Amino acid sequence: MENAENICAPPVEGVAGGGTGYGWNEGSLRSSTSLSKVIDPTVVPTSDLLHVWCLPSTANVGHQEIPRHLEAISMLIARNERESAQVALRPKVTWSGSGIAGVVQVQCNDLCSSSGERLAVGQSLTLRRVVPILGVPDALVPIDLPVSRITVFPGDTSALWVSIDVPVDQPPGQYEGNIFITALKDDTDGFKGLAKTEKHQILKDLQTCVEMVEALDGKPLNEVSEKIKTASATLRGVLHSQSFPQFALDNESGDMMDEDTRTDLSVRIKLSVTVWDFVLPLTPSLPAVFGISETVIEDRFGVEHGSADWYDALNMHFKWLLQYRISPFFCRWGNHMRVLTYTCPWPADNHKSEEYYSDPRLAAYAVPYTPILSCDDAAKDALRKEVETLKMKPHWKKSYFYLWDEPLNSEHYDAIRSMASEIRTYAPDARVLTTYYCGPSDTTLGPSTFEAFVNVPKLLRPHTQIFCTSEWVLGNREDLVKDIMAELQPEIGEEWWTYVCMGPSDPHPNWHLGMRGTQHRAVMWRVWKEGGTGFLYWGVNCYEKAVVPSAEIRFRNGLPPGDGVLFYPGEVFSSSHEPVASARLERILSGLQDIEYLRLFTSRYGRNEGLALLEKTGVYLGPERYTLDHMPIDVMRAEIFRLCQS
Amino acid sequence: MENAENICAPPVEGVAGGGTGYGWNEGSLRSSTSLSKVIDPTVVPTSDLLHVWCLPSTANVGHQEIPRHLEAISMLIARNERESAQVALRPKVTWSGSGIAGVVQVQCNDLCSSSGERLAVGQSLTLRRVVPILGVPDALVPIDLPVSRITVFPGDTSALWVSIDVPVDQPPGQYEGNIFITALKDDTDGFKGLAKTEKHQILKDLQTCVEMVEALDGKPLNEVSEKIKTASATLRGVLHSQSFPQFALDNESGDMMDEDTRTDLSVRIKLSVTVWDFVLPLTPSLPAVFGISETVIEDRFGVEHGSADWYDALNMHFKWLLQYRISPFFCRWGNHMRVLTYTCPWPADNHKSEEYYSDPRLAAYAVPYTPILSCDDAAKDALRKEVETLKMKPHWKKSYFYLWDEPLNSEHYDAIRSMASEIRTYAPDARVLTTYYCGPSDTTLGPSTFEAFVNVPKLLRPHTQIFCTSEWVLGNREDLVKDIMAELQPEIGEEWWTYVCMGPSDPHPNWHLGMRGTQHRAVMWRVWKEGGTGFLYWGVNCYEKAVVPSAEIRFRNGLPPGDGVLFYPGEVFSSSHEPVASARLERILSGLQDIEYLRLFTSRYGRNEGLALLEKTGVYLGPERYTLDHMPIDVMRAEIFRLCQS
Repeated sequence: MENAENICAPPVEGVAGGGTGYGWNEGSLRSSTSLSKVIDPTVVPTSDLLHVWCLPSTANVGHQEIPRHLEAISMLIARNERESAQVALRPKVTWSGSGIAGVVQVQCNDLCSSSGERLAVGQSLTLRRVVPILGVPDALVPIDLPVSRITVFPGDTSALWVSIDVPVDQPPGQYEGNIFITALKDDTDGFKGLAKTEKHQILKDLQTCVEMVEALDGKPLNEVSEKIKTASATLRGVLHSQSFPQFALDNESGDMMDEDTRTDLSVRIKLSVTVWDFVLPLTPSLPAVFGISETVIEDRFGVEHGSADWYDALNMHFKWLLQYRISPFFCRWGNHMRVLTYTCPWPADNHKSEEYYSDPRLAAYAVPYTPILSCDDAAKDALRKEVETLKMKPHWKKSYFYLWDEPLNSEHYDAIRSMASEIRTYAPDARVLTTYYCGPSDTTLGPSTFEAFVNVPKLLRPHTQIFCTSEWVLGNREDLVKDIMAELQPEIGEEWWTYVCMGPSDPHPNWHLGMRGTQHRAVMWRVWKEGGTGFLYWGVNCYEKAVVPSAEIRFRNGLPPGDGVLFYPGEVFSSSHEPVASARLERILSGLQDIEYLRLFTSRYGRNEGLALLEKTGVYLGPERYTLDHMPIDVMRAEIFRLCQS
Repeated sequence: MENAENICAPPVEGVAGGGTGYGWNEGSLRSSTSLSKVIDPTVVPTSDLLHVWCLPSTANVGHQEIPRHLEAISMLIARNERESAQVALRPKVTWSGSGIAGVVQVQCNDLCSSSGERLAVGQSLTLRRVVPILGVPDALVPIDLPVSRITVFPGDTSALWVSIDVPVDQPPGQYEGNIFITALKDDTDGFKGLAKTEKHQILKDLQTCVEMVEALDGKPLNEVSEKIKTASATLRGVLHSQSFPQFALDNESGDMMDEDTRTDLSVRIKLSVTVWDFVLPLTPSLPAVFGISETVIEDRFGVEHGSADWYDALNMHFKWLLQYRISPFFCRWGNHMRVLTYTCPWPADNHKSEEYYSDPRLAAYAVPYTPILSCDDAAKDALRKEVETLKMKPHWKKSYFYLWDEPLNSEHYDAIRSMASEIRTYAPDARVLTTYYCGPSDTTLGPSTFEAFVNVPKLLRPHTQIFCTSEWVLGNREDLVKDIMAELQPEIGEEWWTYVCMGPSDPHPNWHLGMRGTQHRAVMWRVWKEGGTGFLYWGVNCYEKAVVPSAEIRFRNGLPPGDGVLFYPGEVFSSSHEPVASARLERILSGLQDIEYLRLFTSRYGRNEGLALLEKTGVYLGPERYTLDHMPIDVMRAEIFRLCQS
C-alpha cells in the first residue's frame, strides 16, 4: 500500500479539502526530529520541549497565547524606577507522566555592568507567576529566587512577570543578565515522580536497615562487621537513588546555587538594562491617593479593631502600597457614600504618626475626621487637638480631609459645608477634598446636567479645595476640561483632581479586569494630558466579605470585575502574608512613572512639546485614541531619554 | 472610631453606591466561622474548604463555572450502556501553601444493590479529570481508582467526569454508592510539602547514619553497641518523620485501600443507579463509521508502515473505538479527497481479519480498495482475491467500499464509476459508499444547486449504494429530506446516510469544540429523526502533523477547532498510551445510545409515537430547535423506561 509513486491518476483539485489533505505524500518527513518516544530533558534541548518567548508588561498573556520567536528583553530604566516584562512558556511536548506537561526550572542571576556594578537577584530582579483571575491574567505571585520551579500544562501558556527595580543610588550604565529556562526530569519533586515500586523499595530498604542495625546489638564482632557493610551499602543505595540528588538540589535558599545547575540544554533569555541618570523623584509629583478598606482587613484577617494585630495589618498594607508611588488612605464606607478616611491609624501625638506623615514617598495624607462616627463633643475636641498638632508640622501641606464621597443633594452639601466650616475655625488652611460626578439633584445650578456639574465649586467654595471629578463625566470630550478649569480659582489654592471607578468603561482608560494593558496604563497618561494635579481611587482591596485570609476572592456584586481590587491577599496563593499585586497595579505604577518622565521632559522643553511627544509617538491622544500596542511607549521613553540625559 | 451606634446622622440614600457599602455596620458578623488563619483539613470539614456540586454530562464546565447546591447523582442505565455525569470542585479557601489551593482526595467504592450485586470501581465506575483544550473543557484524562488525588487552584473550577458502564449481564435493580471528596493536608506529596529545613534534616540524618555505621567497622564491641543504638534511633526518626506515613499510604494499587482513609470530614456525593432490563444491542442498530488517520498514527507514534508496531498501534485504536459503538475505518487522505479506507489492516486470508470483521460490535466495515495506490495488475488481482474471500463470509453484508470523498466534477464521477464497475464484475452485491454535498460542477443535473444535489443518485446508480450526504446541505430545512429520499430506490438496496464535518456550524448540531453539550448529542437525535440508516465521520485523530507521541495537540488550519479530532493521544496528558476521549466523543456515544432507546420505543409504539416523544419532551424538534438543557433528555429516557420495561 505504500508505493506512492505508482498512483494511477494524481489526485485532482477540489474545493473542500481544507485540512484533510495531510498524509498522502508526507511520509518522508517522518524522521526529521531527534525526539524519541521517551523524552529525557537531561539529553534534549529545552527549546525542543518548550516554546519560550517574551512579551511586554502591557500584554495580557492568556492560556491560549500563541508562541512567537524568542527575543532578548531590553529595558530602559531610570533610577528609583521599576520596569517589567513577561516571559511566556508553552509546552511543545509532554515530558512528564503525571497529568502535567512537565516541570521547568527558572533560574536567574545578577545583572552586571562591565564595571562590575550589579542589579541583584531577589532585590532588583524579581520574578512572579502570572495567575488568571476570572480567566484574565492578573495576579502576580512571587516565585523563589534565584532558582524556582514552574509546572507547565499541556495546551496551556504560562507567563512569568519579570521586574527590575533600580535603586536610587544605582550607577547609570548598561547591565546584562540572563534567565535560564530548563526542562527538568520527571522525578524532580522528591518522591512524586518515582514509580510506585521504586518508592516501596526505598521504604523497604530503610526498614531493613533499621532492623539489621538493631539486630547487631550483642552480636559477635565478626558478624557485626559483616552486617555493617551490608547496612551501609543499603543506606548508600537509598541516598543515591533517583529521588535524593534532586532532593539535595532542592535547596532554594539561594546561597548554594550557582550557574552549574543550568546546562547547555537551557533556553537562555538575555536581559539587557540601560540605567540612566534620571532619578525619579522620591515624592511622587502627582499625589495618587488610594483607599484601603479597613473593614476588609478586619474581617478577612480576623484582627480586632484597635488591637496590636490590627495596627500591624494596617501598617503592612500602608508600607506595601507606598512602593507603588501611591499615597494610601484607610477607609470605611457608609451605606450611602458617607466615608471615614485616614492615612495613619495612630493619633498625631504618637511617634508612629510622624513615621507615616513624614515618609518622603507619601505625597498626600487624609486626616481622620472622627466626628463622622461619633458626634459627641469629645470626638470633636479630639479632632481639634489632632489638627492643631498636625498643622504645626512641615508635612501639614500634604494633608487633606476627605469627608464625603459623591454628594448628591443639598442635604449632602450641607453636611460637607458644616464639617468643613468647623475645621476651618481652627485650621483655616485645611484642604477639603470632595468627589463628585454631578451637581446636587435638588438644586438648579445650570441649564444642563453638565452645567450643574461644572458649577459645583460655586456651592462648595470655600468648603472644598480639592474638586475631584469622575473621568466618566467627560466621555470622549477632552475639550470639556477647560470648562471645569474655568470655574476653579487656583490662586486661592483650588485644585482639580480626577478619579475612575465603575466608569468610564471600555474603551476609555480604566483598571477593570479584561481591559487591555495599555488601557490600564493610559489612565495616568490621561491625567497628565488633562492637567489634573492629583488622582483618587476608592479601593484597592474591596473584595466581597470573607472571614478567612485565604478565602476565595470574590468581586462585589454590581461592580465591574477588578473595580476596587488592585491586589490580592497573599494567603490565597501561598503561605506568604505579603499581598499579591495585580498586573493592573503594576501598570498603574508604570503610568505614574510615565508622568515623571513627561514632567522631566516638559521641565526642559515645555508642556506643549510634551503634549506633542505624546501625540507624535501615538501613546495617548484622547480617551478613545491611545496606543493598543506597547511599542509607542518604549519609543516615547527612549525619546525622553535621548533628549533629557545630561 | 468603632461606636457605630453613635453616628450623628444616618447615611442617606445615594445612587452610585453599588458594592462600596460593605463595611459600615457589619462588624458583628466577624466571628461567624470556625476557620482560623491556619487551616487544617484534618480538623475542618471539607465542605468548608471546597464547593462540590454535580452537573450533567452535557454541561461544559469551564474554569469560572459558578458553584451550585450539591445534590445526589441519579442515573437510569440499560445493560450494555454507559452513562456519565460530572462533579465540579472549586476551592472556597486556600489551605495549601505552595501556589495551589490544595490537594483533594477523591475516593469511590463499588455500587451495591440491596441483594449484594455490585458495579465495581475501576470496571463499571470510572473517573476522569476534565481538561480544557483551547480553553474548552474536553479531554477526559483517567485518574487512579479507587483513590486518587486532584490538585485544585485558587479561583478555578475543576471537573471530574463520572462514568458508569453497566455490563450486559448485570442484574437489573437499584445500585447505590458514594464518591468521597476529602481535602488533604499540605504534606501529602511526599517531600513536596515539607519545610526546607525539615528536608535537609532528613537528608543529613541519613548521611550521618551511613557515616556512623561505616565507622563501626573494626571498633570494639561496646562502642559498636552504643553507636548502633544511636544509628537505629536516627533511622527510626527518619522513618517516622512527616513524609513517610503519607509515603506508605501513597500506594495507589487499590488492594490496600478501604473506607478508613476517608473521614467524617469528607463531602459525600451519593450515586444512585437504576439498572433496567433493556439490553442495548451488541451490534449498533445504526452503523456509525468513523475514520482513523493511519498517517497521523505513523507520524506521531513513529511506527513504520507494515511493521509489528504499526499493526499494534492500529489494533489498539480499532479496539478502543469499538467501545463507543463506532465502526472504525483507517484512512489515508489524498490531496484532493481521493481516499484509501480500510477497517482491517490484515488481508482477508489472515486469521486476524476474522477477529475484526466478525466482532459483533462492528456494524460495518470498509474493504481496502488497494488499486487506488498502485494501478498495476498485481494490485487489481490482490483486490479481487480479497473480495472473493470476503464475499463468502456471513459478515460480507457489513462490508462497503468507500472510494472517493465528495466528488465534484464528472472526472471524479467517472473514476467512481470505473472502480465500482470493476468491483461489481466479481462481487455484484458489493456496496459502494459515496459522500457528497453537491452535484458535479460541470454537468447540468437540475435547475438549482439543490436539484443537482438531489439528482446525484441518477449519475451514480448502480455504482453507489450508500448515498452519504452532508447535513450541511439541509440547513434548517428538515423537509428537504423527503426530496432526497424520493430519489433513492431502497428496493434495490440503496441507503441514505449522512455526515457532518466543517459544516453545519452553530447553532446546528455538530461536534466542534465550544458548541453546547446538547448540540454535540443532538447530531444523533437528528439522524434518527431524519431517518438515515447510517452515519459517517471523516476523522477522529486528525491533529496537525507531529512526530512525537506527547507533542502538543494542534488543530489543522482551516478547520473549526475539534473538527476531525474526537480523542487525544494519552501521552500528552500522562505516561499512559491509552487514547484520551473527548467529552464530545462521550456525547456521541450517548447520542448513539439514545437511538437504541428510541428504536426500542418505536418497536413497541411505532415511529410516530417516537417522534411525538422527542417533540413532547423538547429534546429535538429540528436542527435549530433542540434542548439546551439536560433535563429533557432524562425525562425522555425515563419515559421510555416507564413505557418499555417488561
